[in-house]
Amino acid sequence: MSERIGTVAELRSAYRDGATSPVDQVERVLAGLDGRDGGPVWISTVPAAELRARAEELTRHHDPAALPLYGIPFAVKDNIDVAGMVTTAGCPDFGYRAAQDAPVVRRLRDAGALLVGKTNLDQFATGLTGSRSPYGSGESVFGGGLVSGGSSSGSAVAVAAGQVSFALGTDTAGSGRVPAALNGIVGLKPTRGLLSTAGVVPACRSLDCVSVFTTDVAGAVDVLHAARGVSPADPWGRALPARRASADVPATLRLGVPRPEDLDFFGDDGQADRFAVGVRRLSALVADALPVPLDDYLAAGDLLYQGPWVAERLVALGDFLRAHPGSVLPVTRAVLETGRRYDAVDAFRGRHRLRELRARVDRRWQEIDVLVVPTVGTTFTLDEIAEDPIGRNAVLGRYTQFANLLDLAAVTVPNGFTEDGRPASLTLLGPAFSDLTLARLAAALTEPTPVDAHPAGAGTVAAAVAGGGPVPAPGPAELLIAVVGRHLAGESRNGELTGHGATLVGADRTAPLYRLYRMDTPDDEGLPGLVRAAPTGPPGLPIDVELWRLPTSAVGALLAGVPAPLSLGWVRLHDGRDVLGFLCEAYAVGPQVEDISATGGWRAWRTAARR
Amino acid sequence: MSERIGTVAELRSAYRDGATSPVDQVERVLAGLDGRDGGPVWISTVPAAELRARAEELTRHHDPAALPLYGIPFAVKDNIDVAGMVTTAGCPDFGYRAAQDAPVVRRLRDAGALLVGKTNLDQFATGLTGSRSPYGSGESVFGGGLVSGGSSSGSAVAVAAGQVSFALGTDTAGSGRVPAALNGIVGLKPTRGLLSTAGVVPACRSLDCVSVFTTDVAGAVDVLHAARGVSPADPWGRALPARRASADVPATLRLGVPRPEDLDFFGDDGQADRFAVGVRRLSALVADALPVPLDDYLAAGDLLYQGPWVAERLVALGDFLRAHPGSVLPVTRAVLETGRRYDAVDAFRGRHRLRELRARVDRRWQEIDVLVVPTVGTTFTLDEIAEDPIGRNAVLGRYTQFANLLDLAAVTVPNGFTEDGRPASLTLLGPAFSDLTLARLAAALTEPTPVDAHPAGAGTVAAAVAGGGPVPAPGPAELLIAVVGRHLAGESRNGELTGHGATLVGADRTAPLYRLYRMDTPDDEGLPGLVRAAPTGPPGLPIDVELWRLPTSAVGALLAGVPAPLSLGWVRLHDGRDVLGFLCEAYAVGPQVEDISATGGWRAWRTAARR
Repeated sequence: MSERIGTVAELRSAYRDGATSPVDQVERVLAGLDGRDGGPVWISTVPAAELRARAEELTRHHDPAALPLYGIPFAVKDNIDVAGMVTTAGCPDFGYRAAQDAPVVRRLRDAGALLVGKTNLDQFATGLTGSRSPYGSGESVFGGGLVSGGSSSGSAVAVAAGQVSFALGTDTAGSGRVPAALNGIVGLKPTRGLLSTAGVVPACRSLDCVSVFTTDVAGAVDVLHAARGVSPADPWGRALPARRASADVPATLRLGVPRPEDLDFFGDDGQADRFAVGVRRLSALVADALPVPLDDYLAAGDLLYQGPWVAERLVALGDFLRAHPGSVLPVTRAVLETGRRYDAVDAFRGRHRLRELRARVDRRWQEIDVLVVPTVGTTFTLDEIAEDPIGRNAVLGRYTQFANLLDLAAVTVPNGFTEDGRPASLTLLGPAFSDLTLARLAAALTEPTPVDAHPAGAGTVAAAVAGGGPVPAPGPAELLIAVVGRHLAGESRNGELTGHGATLVGADRTAPLYRLYRMDTPDDEGLPGLVRAAPTGPPGLPIDVELWRLPTSAVGALLAGVPAPLSLGWVRLHDGRDVLGFLCEAYAVGPQVEDISATGGWRAWRTAARR
Repeated sequence: MSERIGTVAELRSAYRDGATSPVDQVERVLAGLDGRDGGPVWISTVPAAELRARAEELTRHHDPAALPLYGIPFAVKDNIDVAGMVTTAGCPDFGYRAAQDAPVVRRLRDAGALLVGKTNLDQFATGLTGSRSPYGSGESVFGGGLVSGGSSSGSAVAVAAGQVSFALGTDTAGSGRVPAALNGIVGLKPTRGLLSTAGVVPACRSLDCVSVFTTDVAGAVDVLHAARGVSPADPWGRALPARRASADVPATLRLGVPRPEDLDFFGDDGQADRFAVGVRRLSALVADALPVPLDDYLAAGDLLYQGPWVAERLVALGDFLRAHPGSVLPVTRAVLETGRRYDAVDAFRGRHRLRELRARVDRRWQEIDVLVVPTVGTTFTLDEIAEDPIGRNAVLGRYTQFANLLDLAAVTVPNGFTEDGRPASLTLLGPAFSDLTLARLAAALTEPTPVDAHPAGAGTVAAAVAGGGPVPAPGPAELLIAVVGRHLAGESRNGELTGHGATLVGADRTAPLYRLYRMDTPDDEGLPGLVRAAPTGPPGLPIDVELWRLPTSAVGALLAGVPAPLSLGWVRLHDGRDVLGFLCEAYAVGPQVEDISATGGWRAWRTAARR
């Protein structure tokens, strides 16, 4: 048995240190594949010579620091196109040789990642067990006849077995989460559309996602960033809004926890116990934990296989199924054929029902930021699945199949083991585009390493980007802003702050670098102006300010209402932080303007003036 | 014949001046209804005693200035619930007495509006002619046998005839626009969900809109603001995002004009001529006019009646239609029954097709802000419709039926008359939430009065709010920003502008008020700093700048990446405009810093320095 391939972070560090090279790593990958190729994990692999040539090229011609996934070996599920390889979707007769890479594969390769091969799956990505493939039934890396889970069975096992650093799966009903749970790894099911589904064999096109398997959360986030992007040819693509490009801090989050009466572990006390432990650990990381009824989520999930959405699978597969019924596994055919039961009125009625459920779920995101659920309520062996392949498949999907219908993002993470040695797992869910927040919380639960480098405070961001690159760094969702005069709480223009969603942090004071002036106004109230002292003039003093937290997206609208000579720049606080603040242009505070610096601040001056 | 009821603005002004009262106005309304009630305009009216009592209450107990629609008489289409009145949807046997007001009616009444009655419609809001009602066929106010248009026939005629100040219609395929066109009035079809469709008999629930008829654009906007709001019970409701609560200025807009080969006036040269005139007048109001292919729009429209969406109408009506086939008009039944032809696979296939079309249309909003189309290509008489009720209905829908499928907002405005005296009309379309921008352009085309008071340029905004109120004025969606150095096109930090969605407006120059400095940086590139000259120092000079147009919401993220001593404030241009711009704090440009003002700008300095 060969050694495990490292994580993205481990390999990146080793490459940059010169401790290894893609040429070395490829030999380790090939050694790891030996004896497993042709089994139930891989459907096809890249020829060794081709893999070596690509590693050689990377090693010789590229800088490890210049490519975000330089030399990282990965696998893709065999319903995703790779140029020159056959896409089978788990059905040999359906297979076709792809002319080009799916955009998501192209982006990973462009980022320096090394494609190793294509992995087994439940046929047509229809199923959650890993046992619906003519290429063989998947067993979990933990053995004992435990199913691998599916439909992305091979991708999950390849990562869990250490054959690659990461793998792409797809996830419509839970195919990127259930096999992560059953193999003890991380499964990131991004917000619909963040990873392009162009070049992916459709299951339900309106719901399909490409997903990421890794052993660590940080690696999944790295892959997400490298792979995401909207392709002009993909009508389902969505971009990550700038305001969601940074994560919320776990300690600020409100966690939703299912009410006990909505949890069903199907008699599996071991999984129930593990979930309780996981919830306790999570609750300690967040600001608040609140009970949440699951009924709307579960009702939405039922629409997928017990409602008209199963007909969506026939849009792409119906003709093939009719022409080649014998080419499709009986269980898969039985599931797909139920789609023919529904008429268009049923389809619209289902959509209306989903809209009602989704409106209620969407409102709940005003109370909680993240929902935690067990990824699976219980586990099954291959024999148990064979006894009831459709019923037990549905059991595995209870906590996963609603996510895409409700437009949720999800991160699945390991949650220890039951006393009888089976893997446990939990899934964090949030609204669309909460991906990075979920990942950050998941990382806090599972790893000491922070997921992203975006700091919370504005000053840190400013310092981080002060060096200046050509591309803007995604900023934080909120900025701290120091105000000195009319915008102070209770003053005449404070409504401009609160009206733009600002919240008061508290009183603070600048570093001893500023002068405060009082400019005359027609209303006699006067307009204070904060000016950083010039080396040639009177020395700077500390000035009282109030700190407010303002949505970054509201800065422009706030600024649009503040006339010259005021501007928004950086104010240094007494503790050395730089925060946004209203400054006054120096030209406007000539000798005729009253200098009130010595009073220490606007309110102090007014008190003094009234005496 | 009685006098016309005034517009919202006319009545508001008269009430506030004390020139009239709701008690007076109600008598005028009742006189205007006399002889018309029971005809094809009204299906039911509020009893005179009740209307008088409500007017009395308003007159005695309410302040005209406290209620936005104080004493404004209005009508609602009879597929919208009013408490205690029968909702027929144009089908007597379907009628039911509503227990409560639809939320949109409730909001209007709470705003002080006076409900006069419920208006005729094409049965089940299915049709665009106004001739599919057992209560009588609508004739346009212009007579000559011209159809009123539908399905909101009675609402449009009641407004055009001056019986009420405004009326609510509904609009799925064009029912809020076609009858506006045929009666020479304004039809606002808001973004889907802005006006709640709760308490409205569904046509296609996922597409239905409540619409507004008025004789002036400003009145429609007033009604929109009073009536909009998300009701918890309405899963289809959407709020107007804060950033879209102000309108873009016409002079900044890019207008899309259909390519000649995509226009079909069905041989009606009079309408073709009028459209050309309208486009010329519009083009003079906007920044640019660009040819746009209509194929994607038209293909989307075809899905509504020649595709699976007709089945959506059967979700609400299918059971009634089956139980009471004789209660439904033959033409309506024939149309609705086509919905039974489609299965669920067709419904999903249609949705996929629409997604493709919509993705392409959505991308086009990066090139244009507004699309103009003729509201109808031609007009028909009642006799002509009777000859081919379904085919000619489709002709009327050519330019309207795609709007809701593509999630567009629309404002229909009169566009003069053909030489043979028929009304012409055009419709402005924009992406979801562009309602106020469309209204502002429509107002500029039709009225001297501005629709809203939000000024265009940043400087104007600053001046407008400099007086300072407690509540922030909603700012414009974009701001102009002047850059002087590293953010110039092609310079090292220009990517921060383009990365935040900024677009280049062009080269410009400041007023002769500034000094430009070159601060040293470790990379020898130098950092330019623009400082407004102080009265005590060297005089200001004009400095070369570039103007960029930046989304207001991106200002914060841009600023977060720009370190001290730079700030964002106001820069005066040579033409007197104040625009946003990067300024340098004066403390940072002491005597040791190079003053490069005399070269006229950063690029000019560099050219000079290289010589």
